[in-house]
Amino acid sequence: MPTSHPFDFSTCFSTTLPPAATRWSGFPPYNFVGGHNDPDSVPVADLTAAAARVIAREGRSLATYGLDSGPQGYRPLREFVAGRLRAQAGIDCSADQVLITSGSLQGLDLVNRLLVNPGDTVIVEQATYGGALTRLRACGAHIVGIPVDAGGLRTDVLETQLRLLEARRQRPKFIYTIPTVQNPTATVMDATRRAELLALAQTYGVPVFEDECYADLTWSGERPAAMRGMPGGEQVIHIGSFSKSVAPALRLGYLVADWPVMSRLLAIKNDGGSGALEQMVLAEYCQAHFDAHLPLLRAALRRKLDCLEAAVREQFGTDAVFSPAAGGIFLWVRLPETVDTSRLAQEAQQAGVAINPGAEWTADGDSGRHSLRLCFAHPDEATLRAGVARLAQVCRTTFGLPPPAHR
Amino acid sequence: MPTSHPFDFSTCFSTTLPPAATRWSGFPPYNFVGGHNDPDSVPVADLTAAAARVIAREGRSLATYGLDSGPQGYRPLREFVAGRLRAQAGIDCSADQVLITSGSLQGLDLVNRLLVNPGDTVIVEQATYGGALTRLRACGAHIVGIPVDAGGLRTDVLETQLRLLEARRQRPKFIYTIPTVQNPTATVMDATRRAELLALAQTYGVPVFEDECYADLTWSGERPAAMRGMPGGEQVIHIGSFSKSVAPALRLGYLVADWPVMSRLLAIKNDGGSGALEQMVLAEYCQAHFDAHLPLLRAALRRKLDCLEAAVREQFGTDAVFSPAAGGIFLWVRLPETVDTSRLAQEAQQAGVAINPGAEWTADGDSGRHSLRLCFAHPDEATLRAGVARLAQVCRTTFGLPPPAHR
Repeated sequence: MPTSHPFDFSTCFSTTLPPAATRWSGFPPYNFVGGHNDPDSVPVADLTAAAARVIAREGRSLATYGLDSGPQGYRPLREFVAGRLRAQAGIDCSADQVLITSGSLQGLDLVNRLLVNPGDTVIVEQATYGGALTRLRACGAHIVGIPVDAGGLRTDVLETQLRLLEARRQRPKFIYTIPTVQNPTATVMDATRRAELLALAQTYGVPVFEDECYADLTWSGERPAAMRGMPGGEQVIHIGSFSKSVAPALRLGYLVADWPVMSRLLAIKNDGGSGALEQMVLAEYCQAHFDAHLPLLRAALRRKLDCLEAAVREQFGTDAVFSPAAGGIFLWVRLPETVDTSRLAQEAQQAGVAINPGAEWTADGDSGRHSLRLCFAHPDEATLRAGVARLAQVCRTTFGLPPPAHR
Repeated sequence: MPTSHPFDFSTCFSTTLPPAATRWSGFPPYNFVGGHNDPDSVPVADLTAAAARVIAREGRSLATYGLDSGPQGYRPLREFVAGRLRAQAGIDCSADQVLITSGSLQGLDLVNRLLVNPGDTVIVEQATYGGALTRLRACGAHIVGIPVDAGGLRTDVLETQLRLLEARRQRPKFIYTIPTVQNPTATVMDATRRAELLALAQTYGVPVFEDECYADLTWSGERPAAMRGMPGGEQVIHIGSFSKSVAPALRLGYLVADWPVMSRLLAIKNDGGSGALEQMVLAEYCQAHFDAHLPLLRAALRRKLDCLEAAVREQFGTDAVFSPAAGGIFLWVRLPETVDTSRLAQEAQQAGVAINPGAEWTADGDSGRHSLRLCFAHPDEATLRAGVARLAQVCRTTFGLPPPAHR
């Protein structure tokens, strides 16, 4: 006779789970984390009108998976993306080379799944998107970081590393880069570096995966040609997003690749398609309004960055070092060596201030130990100022930094 | 000097990829596959009005990931789901126990990721959802199928299997079941069997995972109490979907679980949230219209089923055996032993008719070799009739079945 014991899922969890999530209790009062955007810049009226128009016109097609457009996503949105990439990023592509993804995050997941086996080496920028690092680690990748300066990824260091890895017969699976408004340094890789990176990729036979999800948000309004559009870059996998340029909650991004890669990605994108209503509404909205919307959004973000920079200077004085952000939604700030930003993040959280400590945003952890990332798009200006003041106060209390007036 | 060789992603694919996808070239003329729904039943006008209302009112919140509702999904939609499950399915749950997913497919993926390590045993219904089988196989699960009859999963066979597995010290990770409008048999597990299944789950300490994604589509309009709501079922993981009851392209489903499971699921649902616009529009729509919509949808589906059944009887005569479908969008048909439905599916595809061969829809493959699944929600009645006639013709030509008039 078997013994009776009530079943309990927690005794049979997979052996490879990440730690449990903590309960969500709302955003902190001073929220400098997450890729949230400016609420005042969400084009509410135009999105409303676009939604009403496209649902009334094409709502019957919601009865089918894939909206009669197949697994790559709603065709009008793919056409819009291809047209824009041709015009703005120098990428010669058609809608057949575009895959609509549920945020560029899904693009990251698909590419990792496509390429990475445990133990593989992947090259990234030394300071890079924390989510990319978490995901690569979850795949069991060995991560090599290359430093970034004002001109983008240091191709000279990359060459040294590639030579070293080749000598060890350790061929990296790919180079992951965020060339335009790099996360978190907010730098832009210049055209020379892009060409050098592509040349190295060719020489060493290491593919390039470029994440251009902030490319619409340079203050100048110009974006350099994407590597996918440059000589030697024809095979680059390119991803982008509408999260930063329209709204993150829409969860819509895109990926550009040729059929040998696309056909493999489609086989692993087994989600029944990305959200159709969002694809329809966004396509309808973008065709009419995207180009006019961007300058307004950039101006609003620029004002918030100015406010944040002024607040950081006022509160931290010369203790805070940062390069001018070329665009985007975050500022990467370096504090004195006495300040461990991971500890600062913990103390700040108690005071209602959320920040990204640099250790979580760097491939080696160590090089980011005195840096932090401050996202500025969501809070209003008064909150930005109050939050920086609160953060500075925590920093002074915890690490004994003198107030800026006394230095 | 390294040799120069252009990089090529296809030389560095992961070693564990599924086969490449084939190019999509539109739906076949006679499409009996896929969970598509009735286009005439998509509530276009009410969805349009709901979208306009909710985006105008709450569009600013699209600037945040999670819409101020946190990672479990848009709170008003979770409230609606919880209220409906309390009223209709006997599940005593609150919005805090509901996770909004990108289709119930994401629910399947999350639960598999939560529980399954390669080599684990999972129990399913012998004839079951093909996508669940594909996913479990991709996880490396050992799949054990239990037959289904008119009353649902055969709990007597389940008991024998559980005893056998226990004797081999092979404790299954969970029992996956689709109790209401089982896919593909369209049967409903009765209350007695549900109680027996829960008792066995308790006795053998094997958790239950119930997929109730068709539960809103019984012809009677009644759904039996979900196991999650029954004594001993308090820990059952329950998933459901709006794909079948409103529109599949929305990609919205839900999962009910307690915090020890929920906190683990949230840690692996790292997609930045499911599509917000869809959650907002669906919540707004459902609060006002869901209850009134369902009877109209059921009536439309019922008419199509009647049409399909008549066409199958006319074209196949006594060669086609099927039980009355209790609801849903598919009919499970058994043909004579001379007919291999996998081969039939290939031949039919050449003739523009797509069907699900039973081998892909059964845990052992073999028991479904003479059966097929016909989805009937999307085609209009003339197409249903013409498609069945075409299929019967292919069947006669390929397998030499005499036309029904001659028998």
